[in-house]
Amino acid sequence: MKPTARAPEISETSVRVNYSETDQMGVVYHARYLVWLDVARTEHLRLAGMSYRELEEAGLRLAVSEVAVRYRRPARYDDRIRIRCWVRDLASRRIDFGYAIEREEDGTLLATACDDRVVRVWSSGLPPVSHA
Amino acid sequence: MKPTARAPEISETSVRVNYSETDQMGVVYHARYLVWLDVARTEHLRLAGMSYRELEEAGLRLAVSEVAVRYRRPARYDDRIRIRCWVRDLASRRIDFGYAIEREEDGTLLATACDDRVVRVWSSGLPPVSHA
Amino acid sequence: MKPTARAPEISETSVRVNYSETDQMGVVYHARYLVWLDVARTEHLRLAGMSYRELEEAGLRLAVSEVAVRYRRPARYDDRIRIRCWVRDLASRRIDFGYAIEREEDGTLLATACDDRVVRVWSSGLPPVSHA
Amino acid sequence: MKPTARAPEISETSVRVNYSETDQMGVVYHARYLVWLDVARTEHLRLAGMSYRELEEAGLRLAVSEVAVRYRRPARYDDRIRIRCWVRDLASRRIDFGYAIEREEDGTLLATACDDRVVRVWSSGLPPVSHA
Repeated sequence: MKPTARAPEISETSVRVNYSETDQMGVVYHARYLVWLDVARTEHLRLAGMSYRELEEAGLRLAVSEVAVRYRRPARYDDRIRIRCWVRDLASRRIDFGYAIEREEDGTLLATACDDRVVRVWSSGLPPVSHA
Repeated sequence: MKPTARAPEISETSVRVNYSETDQMGVVYHARYLVWLDVARTEHLRLAGMSYRELEEAGLRLAVSEVAVRYRRPARYDDRIRIRCWVRDLASRRIDFGYAIEREEDGTLLATACDDRVVRVWSSGLPPVSHA
Repeated sequence: MKPTARAPEISETSVRVNYSETDQMGVVYHARYLVWLDVARTEHLRLAGMSYRELEEAGLRLAVSEVAVRYRRPARYDDRIRIRCWVRDLASRRIDFGYAIEREEDGTLLATACDDRVVRVWSSGLPPVSHA
Repeated sequence: MKPTARAPEISETSVRVNYSETDQMGVVYHARYLVWLDVARTEHLRLAGMSYRELEEAGLRLAVSEVAVRYRRPARYDDRIRIRCWVRDLASRRIDFGYAIEREEDGTLLATACDDRVVRVWSSGLPPVSHA
């Protein structure tokens, strides 16, 4: 029973592969998957009522301590990609996220991933805005 | 009167700034704007009934010959960005696109840009798919 | 006569194309050239006795206001690329840099570029370092 | 005794952090480490007498199947970074590489990583070159 839960336990975020993400093998370059994890985690937090932008402005951040990706099938240019994201484990100063990356068209699982984030505190929030 | 026109003359595409696009000034790194132009041009062509993916599979591509960007205001993390795109000039083997990049929240113009694309023909379409 | 000049008027910086820079056309993605300009400008300033890192730490930065690139030949994976950089114009709060991008192996000119940088002052230098 | 060994068992490759690699926390964005691994692995193979470019032209590639990174300390703008790379395990169609990422100035260990690569065969080598 979770009567107060408002956020989905597994969130879904969509991206479309753009040309800059491909490499000369004709597939998405593997480091780009980490950016998708980042996008999905931000949306997951937003659905849970937390804006990462506001967290940062309040002087907090989630610093990555570990990331692991298992690649199963390539993603290709113009594919729509769905990233499922969930919290695998939660401790006082650490969150462990899980991810599944799928091709939206046919639901093929392209990759699975997880990353460990550590909560950090800044002394004074975000950098000051520059004067033009 | 343009009775046969089906595509909008000016298309609009939206992206949300992700963390990977920021730099240590706390703004979007300037080279990322070129990726947004690419995303917007692809959507512009799609609205005009052309999938760039299909163009490539048919052995054509639009190779960039020139690009110019004028930066006016910085884009920031988590901003929603609207890119307007239109065809500035069209010749037999060349298309000149124009772009306006705006912050969606308040319509502020962040940058203007244009690029020149040359139509090229490949002998044999896209690279073959790898064998696992 | 420039008896006090210590820096070369035209600097040369080398990079080797890595896999992440290619796209599915088998050439370097066009936005990556802007990163090379950035690398070359940093080295140009270093040769002139200015570390951009130190400039930033002192509360200054060179914000891009305009960039233009003319692409002539594609760069490819594993190519060694030479970027020549020079100051085209210098005003009190603005520097205009010019660039030539060449394939080192045979000196082929791949692209020319220029960008306009505006000197900006930050109130308080770089963002504070996070506490682990 | 390895009388025929010509390549070092642990290779070292250097990169300097450029501005595009930083994010608004003032550190290198975590996905960039994967690009450094890529650069280091290419140089490791080159020292062992194998050009990855030539491998690809011959119709082979090393496709990533898994990657894992443990982040310990942040890398910062303009840092010189040393990536040590070695082969952790070698099977008939699979190579497992290990990496240590260090700040060159003081030898601080910034991250450790490993990735698993699978040897794949293409039917017809690299994509054809475009006709201008």
